[in-house]
Parts: sequence; C-alpha cells; structure tokens
Amino acid sequence: MGDTDTRDLTRQVADYVVAARLDDIPADALHEARRALLNYMGCALGGSGHRAMAITWEALAPYAGPPTARVLGRAGQTDPLLAALLNGISSHVHDYDDTTPSNYIHPTSPVASALFSYASMNPVTGADLLLAYALGYEVVTRIGDATYPAHYQAGWHSTGSVGVFGAAVAIGKLLRLDERQMVWAIGLAATQSAGLREMFGSMAKSFHPGRAAQGGYTAALLAQRGFTAGEHALEGPRGFAAVESAAYDLRVISDGLGRQYHFHQNTYKPFPCGIVIHPTIDACIQLRRSHQIDARHVAAVRLRVAPLVRDLCDQRDISKGLQGKFSVYHAAAIGLARGKAGLAEFTDEAVNDPLVRQVRECVVAEADASIAEDSVHVEVRMRDGKSHSLALEHALGNLRRPLSDAQLEEKFRDQATMLPAAQVDALIAACWQLDRQADVRRLVDLAVPGPA
Amino acid sequence: MGDTDTRDLTRQVADYVVAARLDDIPADALHEARRALLNYMGCALGGSGHRAMAITWEALAPYAGPPTARVLGRAGQTDPLLAALLNGISSHVHDYDDTTPSNYIHPTSPVASALFSYASMNPVTGADLLLAYALGYEVVTRIGDATYPAHYQAGWHSTGSVGVFGAAVAIGKLLRLDERQMVWAIGLAATQSAGLREMFGSMAKSFHPGRAAQGGYTAALLAQRGFTAGEHALEGPRGFAAVESAAYDLRVISDGLGRQYHFHQNTYKPFPCGIVIHPTIDACIQLRRSHQIDARHVAAVRLRVAPLVRDLCDQRDISKGLQGKFSVYHAAAIGLARGKAGLAEFTDEAVNDPLVRQVRECVVAEADASIAEDSVHVEVRMRDGKSHSLALEHALGNLRRPLSDAQLEEKFRDQATMLPAAQVDALIAACWQLDRQADVRRLVDLAVPGPA
Repeated sequence: MGDTDTRDLTRQVADYVVAARLDDIPADALHEARRALLNYMGCALGGSGHRAMAITWEALAPYAGPPTARVLGRAGQTDPLLAALLNGISSHVHDYDDTTPSNYIHPTSPVASALFSYASMNPVTGADLLLAYALGYEVVTRIGDATYPAHYQAGWHSTGSVGVFGAAVAIGKLLRLDERQMVWAIGLAATQSAGLREMFGSMAKSFHPGRAAQGGYTAALLAQRGFTAGEHALEGPRGFAAVESAAYDLRVISDGLGRQYHFHQNTYKPFPCGIVIHPTIDACIQLRRSHQIDARHVAAVRLRVAPLVRDLCDQRDISKGLQGKFSVYHAAAIGLARGKAGLAEFTDEAVNDPLVRQVRECVVAEADASIAEDSVHVEVRMRDGKSHSLALEHALGNLRRPLSDAQLEEKFRDQATMLPAAQVDALIAACWQLDRQADVRRLVDLAVPGPA
Repeated sequence: MGDTDTRDLTRQVADYVVAARLDDIPADALHEARRALLNYMGCALGGSGHRAMAITWEALAPYAGPPTARVLGRAGQTDPLLAALLNGISSHVHDYDDTTPSNYIHPTSPVASALFSYASMNPVTGADLLLAYALGYEVVTRIGDATYPAHYQAGWHSTGSVGVFGAAVAIGKLLRLDERQMVWAIGLAATQSAGLREMFGSMAKSFHPGRAAQGGYTAALLAQRGFTAGEHALEGPRGFAAVESAAYDLRVISDGLGRQYHFHQNTYKPFPCGIVIHPTIDACIQLRRSHQIDARHVAAVRLRVAPLVRDLCDQRDISKGLQGKFSVYHAAAIGLARGKAGLAEFTDEAVNDPLVRQVRECVVAEADASIAEDSVHVEVRMRDGKSHSLALEHALGNLRRPLSDAQLEEKFRDQATMLPAAQVDALIAACWQLDRQADVRRLVDLAVPGPA
C-alpha cells in the first residue's frame, strides 16, 4: 500500500469523507456497522433512565431550543444539540457500549449520538445514516489507532477527545459539506477535543461522548455557514496529534483510506461492568449451566485471575451496584447465582441480594501471572464435596469470541425494558434493515416510549 | 508564605471561591478589575459586528433556547449559553482584549463573556458580578502561571483551555454553589479544557474564549443539579495539569490564595494588531505629534526592530485589513499618516488608502538583535531633507507603561461606534461604578443598540 504523504492529511480525510459512497464499503463491513448501531441503540435505551440523564435535561432544558429532536429512550423532545449530548450520556453511562481494543475507544457513542439526533428531526434515509456512521467510525478508529497508546496513556479519555472528529465528519456528511467546509469542521472538532480520564468513576465520564457528539455537530453547523478554522488540524505543528499525543503515526490515518475498513476491530460487551471481570462471569455462567449448579449449595469458589484483575476489581465488601461493576467476587457470585449478568445484576438490589452475597462471601481470588487478562480459572466446591472447574481462554465478547447477532439482540432486549415487546421487535428489525429505511425518523419513533 | 499541600488542590480552590467576599480584595486590585471589565466591554462592542458573529448566530440560532439573554453590542436576544459563546467571540476576534504577559492568556474574555450573559437575564448586583469576575480572573491567572510555559508552548491556546476554569468558578459563584458542587464544576470545566494554537489566523481562535465561556457556564449549571465529576481535576494523576502540561508547579495555584492577587499582571492593548509592532506604531505616533509631521512629505522611514518583528510581521505588499495587523510597514505608515491606530486603521480601506500606501512603501525595517522586543528605533527623513528620530524603550500598553484610565476610555469609544455618544458615556460611567449597580441588567441594556 505504500506510505502516503501526510503534509495535507486533514484535507485528505475531508476529501475522502466528501466523496465516499455506501457502495464503496464491503458488505461484511456494513454488517458490522449495523451490529454496532444495534448495540448502540440498546445501550442508549438502557442508559436513558440514568440519573445523569435527568440531571442534564433538568439543568439545560431552560436553555434548550425548540423541541424538534428526540432523545433515544425518553418521551418528550428537545433541540438536536442537547439531544446529541443526552444520547451520548445514555449510551455510555453504563460503560456497556462498544470498544475497539486497538485503542480503547468507545467509537459509536459520539458518532451515532449526533446522527440519531440529527435524523430525528431531518429527513435522512437509512442508507445515508449508515454511510455517515461508517465514515465517522472509520475516522475515529484511524485517528485513535494513529495516536494510541500515547494519547490514551497520557490521560485522555479518547472516546471524547477523538470521538469529536467522528461526530463532526458524520454530521458534515449529512449536511453535504464541501471539501473546504469539511476541513473547517475537522478543525473545529480538533479545537474542541477534550475529556480527562481523571473523571472516571463519576458521571463526567459519560459526559465525554455526549459533549463530543454535541461539539462535533456544532462544528459541522458552523463550518457549513463559513466559520473558518485552521486547515491542518490533524497534522499541523500545533494540531491535534502534536499537542495531544507524545507519539503518533499519521500514516495510520491516511494509508488505505477508502480501501481498507476497520469495522472488524470492534467488540461488544456482553456484561455492563469492568472488562477484566468478564472472563470470571462468563466461566461461572458456563459452569452453572453445565453442572446445574444450585448456588445455595456452593461452599467455596476459587478463582485464579490475571494480576490486573486484583488491582482493579478487588472489592468484596460492597453494597452499591456501581461497586459490583468492579468486584471480581460479585462477578463470580452473579454468574453462579443468576446465570446472567445484565443491568439488573449491577443494581443495589442485586448487590444486596442475600443469595448473591452468600456466594460472594465464599469467593477467593488469587492473582496468577500465568493467567492472561482475557482468561480465568474457576473452581467451585459444593457442600456435598463435589467440585467443578473450568479454564476459560477467551471471554465472550472478545474479538475471538464475538457476540452473535442473536446475543446482541438479547442484550438489546435486556436494556429496552421501557418499550413494549412488539415495539422492541420492530425496532430491532428496523436496525438490521437500516439501509432500507426511507426515513430514519420512523426508526427513531420506535426508540421512544409511546404516548400510551 | 510557605509551600502549601496540593494533594487536595481542587478542593482548596473550590473552598476559596465559595468563601470569598468582595471586602477581602484590596481596593487597588478592584480598580484594576474594573479597568479590565471596561476594556472587555469595549472589545465586545468592537467585535460585535464581525462576520464570525453573524455566522455563529445564524448557524446556531435555530437550536437556541428562549431569547432571555443579551449579546453585548447586538440587538436581539438569545439563550444565555449561546450569548456567552457570542460574547466570547466578539471580545476576542480583533485580538484587542487584555493579556497577562506572565502566561499569554487573554483572561477576561472567557470569564466576563459568561458573566455578562448570565447577568443580562438574572438579577445580579454589580458588586456580586465584580467579585465573581475577580475570582474567575484569579483562578485563570493562577492556573495559567502554574502551567506556563509548558502548556502554551505545547500548542494549547490557554485563553480557551485555561479560561474555561474561570468561567466555571465565576458562574458557580453567582449560582452560590456549595463546596462539593464547586469541585464538580471545576471538574466539568477541566474535562472540557480545549483549544489548539493551530487555529490561529482563523475565526476558530475567537471560538476558544467563547466555547470556554459557554462550557464553564454549562459546567456550573450541571454541578448545581448534582452532575458529579472527578474531584481532583487539577492535581490528579490524569487531571488537567498532568495531562495538558509537561511541567507545572501546582503551588503557584494554592500559595497565597485569598491573600495575594494578580490583577496588576494584566495589560491592555492600545492597538488592535500584533503586539510586536506596537513599539513602531507608538513611536511613529509620537514622532508625528512632536514634529507635526505631514505624511505627504515623508521621503523615507528607517526602522530598527527586534529580529522577531521581521519574523512575524514582514508583509509590505498588502491589500487586506487583516494583513495590516501583521505588517510592521503598515504600522509605521498609519502612525505617521493618521496619528492613531484604532480598528479603522486595520480595515481594507485603510490598507488601501493612497497616503498610507505611499508612506508604507518608503519604510525599511532592519532586524537588529540589540533592540528588545518591546523597543524600536525609528528615523523619518522628510523631502526637505530634515530628519526626525526616536528610540522607544517600552511601548504603550506594556506593564511599565500601562494605558491610563482616560486612554482606556478612548479605546472604548473607538470601538463603541454602534451606540449613541450619550449611551457610551453612560455605559463607561456604569462600568467605573460597577460595584454600585443594583442590577447589572441596566448596565447591559446600555451595551446594546437601542430600539430606535
């Protein structure tokens, strides 16, 4: 493929986005894009009732524009820039959205949050939305890969700081910006790039993809009207890469642009909790199923885990759902006691469930440097003296064990509890057939609670 | 004064802002704060008609909330968050606002742009606004000093990236946030910290203080409602200083907080153009005045300037006002031909004025390493053979030669051309007496064109 010249990188990216057509993208890549959007939509529904959403809407509604846009999962309308922010918060607040392991970015939230807001008030075909999303995803992933790991390790939450580029080019594509305007949109995105990992553990983490969606959307609107920006936002000596990443390879952004796609780098979490405890949950669910384990009779659980798991998820004496998301003991307990780990398993109720607690209290976790981060060894000893064990190599949701389409649907249903079942079915079908939708507004209508 | 412990720095700053009272601030510092606000108000008026303002308003008005807030210098109303953005753009777009030479930040634009927007729609006393501004200025200056030069040299436009903290604490003070909320507001500001110097030379530069004002205002509103954020936003391992500055001294933020103020670090530009050509303009105005120079009879002008001046401002063959702002030849020409250098001297008209051009064409500028950046040597030779020269050590506007109150008023009047003279007089008087205003809305009403 050969190295490309990156002295005019921002313009190259703009050119690509302006010229790209849906037909250019291979069918398997588009299927992965649809999977990502289905997963996104479910997460936006699942997070739509979170307190961070209510706070944001209450705090900012007095300053919101005419209510022309819809917020996924919520009744009522607001202006599309606030809706973009809200969609970004809901879809990320449970940390349940997609992740590209090559750069740790959650790529869909910032891009799709802007797009579904835009498409809730403007006539957009499903094909146009899918294309705009695909371009946003591709731009985010390339910029993320080009600056990983330095950018992330420095402390940037790249879901926000890189996500903003994806939102800008995606909305810019729907606005049919010309090349010069697209360059400005990228510039206005770069100069809003923000989000610190110091916010992890607070609501502000979910604010990052929301603000990226809103900022990228704003960038495209301003550029459309002729608001100028520096034209070397990515590659310039004081541009994004130079300022926000101690090391980077700009060719990763330009090489193969329009010929190679990165959709298969994406992964979907089966469980709404810290990724490092996924192997434990997965193994315990499998053990319960294989051996019809009755959790009431569990005497002891011994885990051998990668040392990182103890570093990050060593809380056993917990009382809050949020703590459960970062407890390897809770992970084993819900796997054995409930055989599943959806949103309901990380509530305060679940953490305080007597059976879950009873199992949690008999779990020990041993750090073992010979266990990989994506693996676990679990041994369950029953009161009757029987013992069951499993050595899991790769957890479900890993690139090597991706969620099936059916598993993505199951995850979706688990989060779409505010919608009637028939509406959920229709919404899932509409997501799978996104590029055949004549108007995405019909799909978005399915994603909000009806007037009842 | 002794070193303070900075492990809880964000909370210390929050404590200070929450507890501070106007009486705590020395009278001379408050006078400087009033000077800064007068200068700010003039700049906001002067930039209010800029094309970047019209574009922003047009692009974002469809998404703006109820029109309850005023934009300085403009008829009509919009929502206060958009008004904060617009005030930030207008007050910085001519690069004519204040500068603290210790960190190159334009500190007032991000803070006051949010405050005057807020106070245009809420009852706020002048004393409360002055206090909130003073706290915002102090926070910006301390964070700027603590991270200068590394943060700026890395490519951050700290007027935006640091300015956002000032807007957040200033609005937070008016909202009477408690300490915990103020900590969150600082966190939400930190995680929006943005603005790249790669945008210099485009409209996006003025977007930085605007977005900082809007983002800081938003941070305070969200924190008020309980939107949580990381609580070590300034000092944490992945907080603002660690992520955005390769070197810093956090004690500069905390040492003497509430006892030492930094208002005398502020400077006001007499001329709306690159700071490095200020000595040339100043010297030429002085020569014209001292020797009653008639520019029509100038035969030759010889400048000896610091080498940096040639590096940055070497354009002679120019046709646009914006180019004039970075031309040492134009600087000499307007000083000699017009005896002043206000906004009118950096228009396309002025640059193409035959007399200005005639003088410009007989200027030569010699880089001389013995001339300091704030100095110049000018020699003017007349057609009759007479010669006049001046060696200027410090340009007007420098910390050693600050603009007098009367000169600030003159600068204000030069920019307030959209308002009737009597209204300008009343507005200037109201600014000087800010802390005696019962309701700042009356002052803001004076800063917009009347219904006439």
